[in-house]
Amino acid sequence: MGRWEPDARGRLARVALELYAERGFEQTTVEDIAERAGVTERTFFRHFADKREVLFDGSAALQHGLVDAIASAPAGLAPIEVVSRAFAHVGSLLEERRAFAHRRAAVIAANPALQERELLKMASLATAATAALRARGVPPSDAALAAQAGVAVFSLAFELWVAGAPSDTLATIIDATFADLRSVTAGVAP
Amino acid sequence: MGRWEPDARGRLARVALELYAERGFEQTTVEDIAERAGVTERTFFRHFADKREVLFDGSAALQHGLVDAIASAPAGLAPIEVVSRAFAHVGSLLEERRAFAHRRAAVIAANPALQERELLKMASLATAATAALRARGVPPSDAALAAQAGVAVFSLAFELWVAGAPSDTLATIIDATFADLRSVTAGVAP
Repeated sequence: MGRWEPDARGRLARVALELYAERGFEQTTVEDIAERAGVTERTFFRHFADKREVLFDGSAALQHGLVDAIASAPAGLAPIEVVSRAFAHVGSLLEERRAFAHRRAAVIAANPALQERELLKMASLATAATAALRARGVPPSDAALAAQAGVAVFSLAFELWVAGAPSDTLATIIDATFADLRSVTAGVAP
Repeated sequence: MGRWEPDARGRLARVALELYAERGFEQTTVEDIAERAGVTERTFFRHFADKREVLFDGSAALQHGLVDAIASAPAGLAPIEVVSRAFAHVGSLLEERRAFAHRRAAVIAANPALQERELLKMASLATAATAALRARGVPPSDAALAAQAGVAVFSLAFELWVAGAPSDTLATIIDATFADLRSVTAGVAP
């Protein structure tokens, strides 16, 4: 492998996931990843702060995509509909990385510390979505409820997507799960 | 302070919260807590594994209360109504410890690591509620959505309770917030 590495970052991420799946996350070292990717450890650290960041470096982009979609939704939409469309948009972005997202989910499911990190990521997503709704003028409680409900729907839809048939897209499952949420919550006694 | 300590545990918890509020959680040592409570450090460790456990030793009781309330709800209730009543029940238990719960919330709000722990506790509550609903025969997706929605409502209601007037009980705020959730999610386009 020469010094010219047009996609060292992408290759490192792919190889890291392969190794996490084969050996477990804890048992894989940065040295292992760099070796299999045919680069130096120094190259790894030019792209990722540590081996956990390979799994979470997409979090910021996900959050930005969600917040931008909330901010740019048409005026006059109900807050939950703004959130629903924003998550469906984020879902369509994840669809392009389907193979990576599915492998990543399996690695995280096998490791409690990574699951905690994923939960904190989801909480941060809810906080960001709440702020983005409030910036649209949605009252604080409604903003928090719509955002939290959205994150709950997204998490469940993501699980169903990973477990489901390849023909079901994440955006479609997200839409269906928002509809389920409406049915479920309609059962609150008035 | 003699060797006879009828409520060393309660006194330790009260004193610990006072010190966390005065000095900050990180800056308080078990030695400080034991000294102010007039007991030895050994007595502290007979009651709590560490200083963080003072804040989280009620978590198991909260979860049991919630799960029992879900299990013993009348048959035929909608899942979200089961969850709503179960959280209102838990809310009435917390009302009895209002002063402690409010002080505790302030300590947690001031410390990011404690906030993370609190988020993980809420996630664990949602997992337990999902399992309890499934044990009642609720389908998996509906169980997960009702449980996650319930935890979102409970977290928000808890915040409103801590910030609000002393005349508003947590159970009342929980009921009102479940009603808000129904209104918010009714906005999902069919």
